[in-house]
Amino acid sequence: MTLTIRPATPQDVALMLRFVRELAEFEREPDAVKATEESLTQALFGERSAEAVIAEQDREPMGFALFFHNFSTWTGRKGLYLEDLYVTPEARGSGVGTALLRHLAGIALDRDCGRFEWAVLDWNTPAIDFYSAMGAESMDEWRIRRVSGDALVKLAGRS
Amino acid sequence: MTLTIRPATPQDVALMLRFVRELAEFEREPDAVKATEESLTQALFGERSAEAVIAEQDREPMGFALFFHNFSTWTGRKGLYLEDLYVTPEARGSGVGTALLRHLAGIALDRDCGRFEWAVLDWNTPAIDFYSAMGAESMDEWRIRRVSGDALVKLAGRS
Repeated sequence: MTLTIRPATPQDVALMLRFVRELAEFEREPDAVKATEESLTQALFGERSAEAVIAEQDREPMGFALFFHNFSTWTGRKGLYLEDLYVTPEARGSGVGTALLRHLAGIALDRDCGRFEWAVLDWNTPAIDFYSAMGAESMDEWRIRRVSGDALVKLAGRS
Repeated sequence: MTLTIRPATPQDVALMLRFVRELAEFEREPDAVKATEESLTQALFGERSAEAVIAEQDREPMGFALFFHNFSTWTGRKGLYLEDLYVTPEARGSGVGTALLRHLAGIALDRDCGRFEWAVLDWNTPAIDFYSAMGAESMDEWRIRRVSGDALVKLAGRS
């Protein structure tokens, strides 16, 4: 029973899309996922806008993490941004989330990243406690702003 | 008196570093900037971890924006993330910030980005009001977590 973390391949796309949908459901946004197998394949293995790793035990997938590089003008270096971290309900509490975070921290160091960052929902107390135990600090002063859809077209002056 | 927005060149690095430092001072973190001309040059024109545009009027620089692409598993598409938006004190209130945001929204559409996002400090009321007027929604439920420095080495199990 060894936990393995390996880079995702195109053969994992259907599995990852299932994980993305399960995570969106947990995050109370079940209809938010517009991604398709085609768009994920293109992003991860065509454009390479993001990367992903799969956690598995005896070839049974237990979870995954999807990440990309951001950049900070303060550190002057790129950082590693964790977009999705997901562990299947059956595997929770068995150390899979910890192993994924540790693995990504190692990638961040190997690639000379100044920071390893992600976002958490303010009501997700178990995750918040878990991240604090992992040494993460909370950037409480910062709030995300987003423009999308019609508002983006309008802002660009193209409506 | 025409406002022009153009891509930054390696000749703009010293100017951008000055802007980054002035912005950090405004954000009450004057000592936070570890970036150097070398690291910015490498990031923007070597690795291409980020891109930047300069706003100028009659060849006088009035501000700049630095951005990179993130990725969303919900949209299945890359997004445009605005890391820094800065307008010089003399130029504030003259539409430079609006012009920069509109320009970036156009880049986001041209590159088929699903979202245009950035972070704002929760006490920066003028910026918050400005962004709301620009059609930005506030992602109030989300909080950023960060691991860096010794905590990152420890999380990776390399301390």
